[in-house]
Amino acid sequence: MIDLTKNLAAVNRRTKASVIRELLKITNKPDIISFAGGLPDPEAFPTEAVIEITAKVLRKNARAALQYGETEGCPQLKEVLVKNLREEEGISVRPENILITTASQQALDLVAKTFIDPSDPVIVELPSYIGALQVFKSYGALMVGVRGDENGINTDEVERKLIALKNEEEHYKFIYLVPDFQNPNGVTLSAGRREKIAALAREYDVVVVEDSPYRQIRFSGKASPMIYKLDTSSNVISLFTFSKTFAPGFRLGYIVAHEALIRKMVILKQTLDLCTSPFSQLIAAEFVNGGYYREHIKKVIGIYRAKRNTMLSALERHMPDGVTWTEPEGGLFLWVCLPDYMNADELFAGAVRDQKVAYVIGSAFHCDGSGQNTMRLNFSYSTHEQIEEGIKRLAQMVKNNLRRGARADSKGHNQACGRNASR
Amino acid sequence: MIDLTKNLAAVNRRTKASVIRELLKITNKPDIISFAGGLPDPEAFPTEAVIEITAKVLRKNARAALQYGETEGCPQLKEVLVKNLREEEGISVRPENILITTASQQALDLVAKTFIDPSDPVIVELPSYIGALQVFKSYGALMVGVRGDENGINTDEVERKLIALKNEEEHYKFIYLVPDFQNPNGVTLSAGRREKIAALAREYDVVVVEDSPYRQIRFSGKASPMIYKLDTSSNVISLFTFSKTFAPGFRLGYIVAHEALIRKMVILKQTLDLCTSPFSQLIAAEFVNGGYYREHIKKVIGIYRAKRNTMLSALERHMPDGVTWTEPEGGLFLWVCLPDYMNADELFAGAVRDQKVAYVIGSAFHCDGSGQNTMRLNFSYSTHEQIEEGIKRLAQMVKNNLRRGARADSKGHNQACGRNASR
Repeated sequence: MIDLTKNLAAVNRRTKASVIRELLKITNKPDIISFAGGLPDPEAFPTEAVIEITAKVLRKNARAALQYGETEGCPQLKEVLVKNLREEEGISVRPENILITTASQQALDLVAKTFIDPSDPVIVELPSYIGALQVFKSYGALMVGVRGDENGINTDEVERKLIALKNEEEHYKFIYLVPDFQNPNGVTLSAGRREKIAALAREYDVVVVEDSPYRQIRFSGKASPMIYKLDTSSNVISLFTFSKTFAPGFRLGYIVAHEALIRKMVILKQTLDLCTSPFSQLIAAEFVNGGYYREHIKKVIGIYRAKRNTMLSALERHMPDGVTWTEPEGGLFLWVCLPDYMNADELFAGAVRDQKVAYVIGSAFHCDGSGQNTMRLNFSYSTHEQIEEGIKRLAQMVKNNLRRGARADSKGHNQACGRNASR
Repeated sequence: MIDLTKNLAAVNRRTKASVIRELLKITNKPDIISFAGGLPDPEAFPTEAVIEITAKVLRKNARAALQYGETEGCPQLKEVLVKNLREEEGISVRPENILITTASQQALDLVAKTFIDPSDPVIVELPSYIGALQVFKSYGALMVGVRGDENGINTDEVERKLIALKNEEEHYKFIYLVPDFQNPNGVTLSAGRREKIAALAREYDVVVVEDSPYRQIRFSGKASPMIYKLDTSSNVISLFTFSKTFAPGFRLGYIVAHEALIRKMVILKQTLDLCTSPFSQLIAAEFVNGGYYREHIKKVIGIYRAKRNTMLSALERHMPDGVTWTEPEGGLFLWVCLPDYMNADELFAGAVRDQKVAYVIGSAFHCDGSGQNTMRLNFSYSTHEQIEEGIKRLAQMVKNNLRRGARADSKGHNQACGRNASR
């Protein structure tokens, strides 16, 4: 075979296998309780609705469902999304502002492909969604990390970075954020900071990528407006997915942005996969239109809220002093901070081997390699029994590694963990 | 909004909207007979089978179908493909040699992303599939075109190009071929030249990308072995799709290659879309396993063979002397060569406006901008009546543009058109 070290494109020297993916291989054994994945609860899948809808779509519209579709997406689905964005978010767009993607990972790839030339800086959160970091890296982006707290990313620091990049004549491309129930830390960006981000988009003429996979899965509290709604610069690109509000198996997401940006991304999508499955798109359109969607989200919220509560309660009961965690108002993840001197990366192998429990190491979400005392826990996939037992095991691991005499801050579920994580 | 001319990545300055896509917009009117698209006949879609299979898959396996899947592809589908490759092609592979893709366009993107750095030469056919040219271009490839004849690409010329590239110390990456019923010209690579390509792969240690979307749709004659089967160097990557043997709406394809190459592409696919729809994959696995697949291909072959015959017969009856065309033994397209002095690019607008008939300009498939006297005609989508009437209209257009006194070679369906096209 050809010598790969001599024949691969540069991108392959930058793109590595996802840490999570490699972890999942180890943790995919039946005796291990895993909080590592980010999978929806399969018990919540609307299987009967899908059987019904699929037959209906095929009887009514097989010629469109089974044929190639437009690169922009099926008009039927885009229409439904226009209506939904108006009703749910007070966002007014036209079909020309929407591009249907093969799930939101493709949306991230499209955004990166649209803007990033090797060594272009992009501003990301510390911590950030690893799937986004990976794709930005694959285009050679220079990641500029900004820390946050219980109200999300520090927007003053974002502004300072923008000023510095501008002064250095850097070709900075965008700010990447997950404003609602962030992956990995579960934190939600405050209303005031959203206003500030929208203002920065205008003032510094910089694109803001608002990645919004979990927004609909809110357990409590009131949603702040999407940054897209606050924006007056047309510089905000919002990414959505059906993976959490319907099912990941359809591989469906969408991008909402200014028409000129959508047009550019449509041309790039032609080279990626010509079009997203019309079969999946028409099923999703019927799922939303037929009223299944709202009902399904209610059900999912109920299930995940209960699981989050189980996990919070187990953390409270089992974790020793010095451990803190976030208390997300929605989504699929929470974030645990161990005492500073503990290294979750190093503890991982033992946790799986001895305690039979798995998490994702928090450092994987840090573009600067920090965050070694943090971990991401998923509460959507495991059963209540597994959550209770798994947290007990995790707490045992932590207790086994406590340093005698080390100063132990009081434990608890407070949002300050976001700050902790940021050291 | 941001100034796009200043903010887009370099790739966007290279990637243009597909000519075909733009043509399709014009030709998508009800009174126009279009031979421009490459769409399968929707009459042939196995709708009832899909309804049956989908319900079965969901009842049996909704947890896998609706969940995220492995990036490599669903084991069930890969197993079916291993068996099929052995039975249909005498090709022996393991599941580790297969990567399921979001249709073969993604397979092309993965191959390009794996190997191409800006300005790397790749060897392509004159003419070549436009969707491949577009994706190679989007990574900045330098296209080196090689002409062919009725037996496919001129392999001696391929060798001369390889020698030249080697002497120039160029970092050439691969040879791209559609060996069976090529898109656009319908020509099939001869057995001898396949042997030669396999020999070149070994001798020059160069990757061969064998794109095989139509191979199963053979109307007559005997298939030559796939280049993958002849290869002894592990340098051949073969691309397949379900778009023609099942339906495009599922967006399913696969790559067969050496395990080490598959592993690299799996990592890149993580950044593209995490995984291809398990829902689509499990439906396809059942389609093949349940015996629907073989039956469906027989049906498709019957329908397309009859349509090809109708088109050939109409060309014979209506076209004036000096026009030649290929007679493909399978696939979806044939290739027409007008007299040298005619320019199919320039005639296009009039054909659509006055004659209400559309084709794809042959020059769109030429990386060097040649082929202005050629056109691609699709025979899979139109009805028999439309084919008869459309060819009559096309012939009228040609007759209207004949030069008095110009030397007219005798017309006819002979493979020499491949040579004609190559001027």
